[in-house]
Amino acid sequence: MRHFLTTEDWDQNALQHVLDRAKALKAGASSAALAGKSVALVFFNPSLRTRSSFDIGIAQLGGHPVVLDARAGTWPMEMTEGAVMDGDAEEHVVEAARVLSRYVDMIAIRCFPKFQDWSVEREDPLISAFARHSSVPVVNMETIVHPCQELALMMTLQERLGRVENKTFLLTWVPHPRPLNTAVANSALLIASKFGMNVRMLIPDDVYRLDDRYMTAAEQACRVHGTKFEIMTDVEAAYTGAQAVYAKSWGALPFYGQWESEGHYREKGAGFMVDDAKMALTDDAIVSHCLPMRRNVKIADSVVDSPAFLGIEEAENRLHVQKAMMEALSREQDARG
Amino acid sequence: MRHFLTTEDWDQNALQHVLDRAKALKAGASSAALAGKSVALVFFNPSLRTRSSFDIGIAQLGGHPVVLDARAGTWPMEMTEGAVMDGDAEEHVVEAARVLSRYVDMIAIRCFPKFQDWSVEREDPLISAFARHSSVPVVNMETIVHPCQELALMMTLQERLGRVENKTFLLTWVPHPRPLNTAVANSALLIASKFGMNVRMLIPDDVYRLDDRYMTAAEQACRVHGTKFEIMTDVEAAYTGAQAVYAKSWGALPFYGQWESEGHYREKGAGFMVDDAKMALTDDAIVSHCLPMRRNVKIADSVVDSPAFLGIEEAENRLHVQKAMMEALSREQDARG
Amino acid sequence: MRHFLTTEDWDQNALQHVLDRAKALKAGASSAALAGKSVALVFFNPSLRTRSSFDIGIAQLGGHPVVLDARAGTWPMEMTEGAVMDGDAEEHVVEAARVLSRYVDMIAIRCFPKFQDWSVEREDPLISAFARHSSVPVVNMETIVHPCQELALMMTLQERLGRVENKTFLLTWVPHPRPLNTAVANSALLIASKFGMNVRMLIPDDVYRLDDRYMTAAEQACRVHGTKFEIMTDVEAAYTGAQAVYAKSWGALPFYGQWESEGHYREKGAGFMVDDAKMALTDDAIVSHCLPMRRNVKIADSVVDSPAFLGIEEAENRLHVQKAMMEALSREQDARG
Repeated sequence: MRHFLTTEDWDQNALQHVLDRAKALKAGASSAALAGKSVALVFFNPSLRTRSSFDIGIAQLGGHPVVLDARAGTWPMEMTEGAVMDGDAEEHVVEAARVLSRYVDMIAIRCFPKFQDWSVEREDPLISAFARHSSVPVVNMETIVHPCQELALMMTLQERLGRVENKTFLLTWVPHPRPLNTAVANSALLIASKFGMNVRMLIPDDVYRLDDRYMTAAEQACRVHGTKFEIMTDVEAAYTGAQAVYAKSWGALPFYGQWESEGHYREKGAGFMVDDAKMALTDDAIVSHCLPMRRNVKIADSVVDSPAFLGIEEAENRLHVQKAMMEALSREQDARG
Repeated sequence: MRHFLTTEDWDQNALQHVLDRAKALKAGASSAALAGKSVALVFFNPSLRTRSSFDIGIAQLGGHPVVLDARAGTWPMEMTEGAVMDGDAEEHVVEAARVLSRYVDMIAIRCFPKFQDWSVEREDPLISAFARHSSVPVVNMETIVHPCQELALMMTLQERLGRVENKTFLLTWVPHPRPLNTAVANSALLIASKFGMNVRMLIPDDVYRLDDRYMTAAEQACRVHGTKFEIMTDVEAAYTGAQAVYAKSWGALPFYGQWESEGHYREKGAGFMVDDAKMALTDDAIVSHCLPMRRNVKIADSVVDSPAFLGIEEAENRLHVQKAMMEALSREQDARG
Repeated sequence: MRHFLTTEDWDQNALQHVLDRAKALKAGASSAALAGKSVALVFFNPSLRTRSSFDIGIAQLGGHPVVLDARAGTWPMEMTEGAVMDGDAEEHVVEAARVLSRYVDMIAIRCFPKFQDWSVEREDPLISAFARHSSVPVVNMETIVHPCQELALMMTLQERLGRVENKTFLLTWVPHPRPLNTAVANSALLIASKFGMNVRMLIPDDVYRLDDRYMTAAEQACRVHGTKFEIMTDVEAAYTGAQAVYAKSWGALPFYGQWESEGHYREKGAGFMVDDAKMALTDDAIVSHCLPMRRNVKIADSVVDSPAFLGIEEAENRLHVQKAMMEALSREQDARG
């Protein structure tokens, strides 16, 4: 059975089919792919945009969304096999996944890392266990990657740039008062490289390198496509000639969960906000950012309010790509009988 | 594009059309005005009655409700243009409104004042900004006014009194252990005066006068209709001859957010609970109150449990007027193409 | 008007009709019993499984579910008639029930006891008051009993054992780090005895006896059926010859709300986990447990992962029995006009 946990498990062609269908849905095609079906939306972390776009998308496909709020503390769940469950967890993920599978036809999960131990959290243990024990498809609504955001980003790039192959995509670290999850940054590398773009990652210091898993995946995809993957710390060089700029802030993995000492390195990126001067170096690039986004901290108002900014379009496209992906998973499931 | 932020923006005829349609819906008329549409219900403050009546009303109109819980702390939002967003707010209302507009066909918002600075909050900044940046109609589910409650109140008055013109409406301050929002009191003045009633406001002390914006609006509406607007502190005079009594408690604006010194004035209204003795002074008046309502603090059991009490009817009518208003906004939106 | 507050109000035949209908629904029968209707799901305590199974079941019956989160503190409600409401409660249950009755066609409520005063809480005051003042059927989603779980349990037993009459049902107390609600234990006694099973209750000490109300009901039902009701503390004797084992942990009523001194008695049950050795004493018994369930604390992995374990099936059956019960209540309501 096919899940949608990470784009690493899907090849470019399969994803392009989903993107093409998303464009058709956006253009007005209708679909009753979820008629008579229910989808559980399980939130271990809060959400407004993801929640509304999934909820509405499911309804538009004729299905019934069930939102389950499993936020911090309300549903501590055991993930280790054989555990003696005398701690906080009242339920094992095995039972949770099996029972939900009996109620619904698809399970979407949001579960951010807890900023405790990256060596554990980089394995994405909760959604992986859910997928292992579920008898219905599982969809990732953001964990340590954010594959739905990837699809929305790629759809937006294709809408504006046409063919993206060999164009230059810049992922730039930007300032933020707090260290954030690396999911969207990991995802940006994965999708841009898989679709044949030259990929640059601009960071203020080497401590902001992402997990090897994602940098290696990007490197390999670029090698296959004959494009370049570069990690850069020079702002001017990075922006020069870029055709797409994607802004994201994240916490440095060497200080994961013990952020006190990260401040020094964060300071080095104090000038990394996307602004007009930097944009002037690009090849008339478009700019995007997943939302929410702090104006005048991550991106200057003048850039956000210019035609180059595609963040609203990308947010809208979340709705369409998610519908297309749920349709694809549901049809495969039906085909399996 | 027309929103429903406050009845101040709507004339009596337009509102009467909505009320007439609400009566038809209550009598059993059906409507598919929201078929294929979604409505976001955004709650910055908790709600049970407003949430259920909107949710059910949308479903009855064939639409899909999406409830977004944006309660304290979960979605702090920047409202100032040009702000450098390095504080708590992760998102600017501009992006929030624009993205939601892409997902849904109407946005309803509940956002109480924060009891911090009335000079700011009296401008109703959040819902105003949402309306400014939204491309779909915005509906007020209670901010510093409560226009849906106004419509429900007027529908209930008309059901019981027939023509309300020239009848006497008494808004009486009543006791409550805590200082409350003035929204429903402001709204009561607006709707009773707009529909041609004589309006009396009974308060224990001048410090309980409402914001000039609403007292002036009521005064002007009464002048247009040739009715009387009176602010009274004499209980006996206020009840004598009244045909409708509306009870509400609120905090005194001069002590807004610094309530310590308000207690002294609150004490002066200790005898203001609606009871049989006061009701005996009226012209066989009906009594109502938006819910929730503290029995034997705001209104005595003997009054609540008498046929004069219309609070349950008014609460039911919320469902009908909201459906009629959403239908009207949706039809206008469709007409605009 | 008929509610579903406790199976004590329903005779075996009426419940068997509901179970038979649940089996038909599970087998694929469809029903539009709630078409055009709304059901309020009011949660004074959190829930994920109950919430999803009710929500989905209502949608499958063509109805519209409205989930109201009334968790601790958000909706403190007065239940005493004549109360002067100058405390925490903003609303009286009389108004809450009357207004919800105007909006929806059925009200389901979850409200656990507060572990404060069992002499009060054993009367189930909130759901009882709701039922008294509601003009639509009220369904219990777990209070001091859990009648929906009872139906799911009995459906599961009948699916596996065929006729349950005269078979032996063992309710065994099992370890848990914290004292829990007695609802499911009370319910297990009620349903097994009502359906003609021999009922054994295994507890580590007499302090774990359940409220007399339920033990007496079980005793009387067993007398009517000519079966045996036994309270046992000997593990070996209790398991020997049992055909169904139901595991549940609960707090000892003599220490209700003052659990400090219960620990000593809890220790006496340290060996009460359901395991292979105990299961070997039974007559090839099935085992079940309502979920959530702590593995290797209440039941050993080897038992949970064996074919004898029916907890997942019982959880699935919640969906079917709830649909059948809502259908029955709705049809009765329609018949009353």
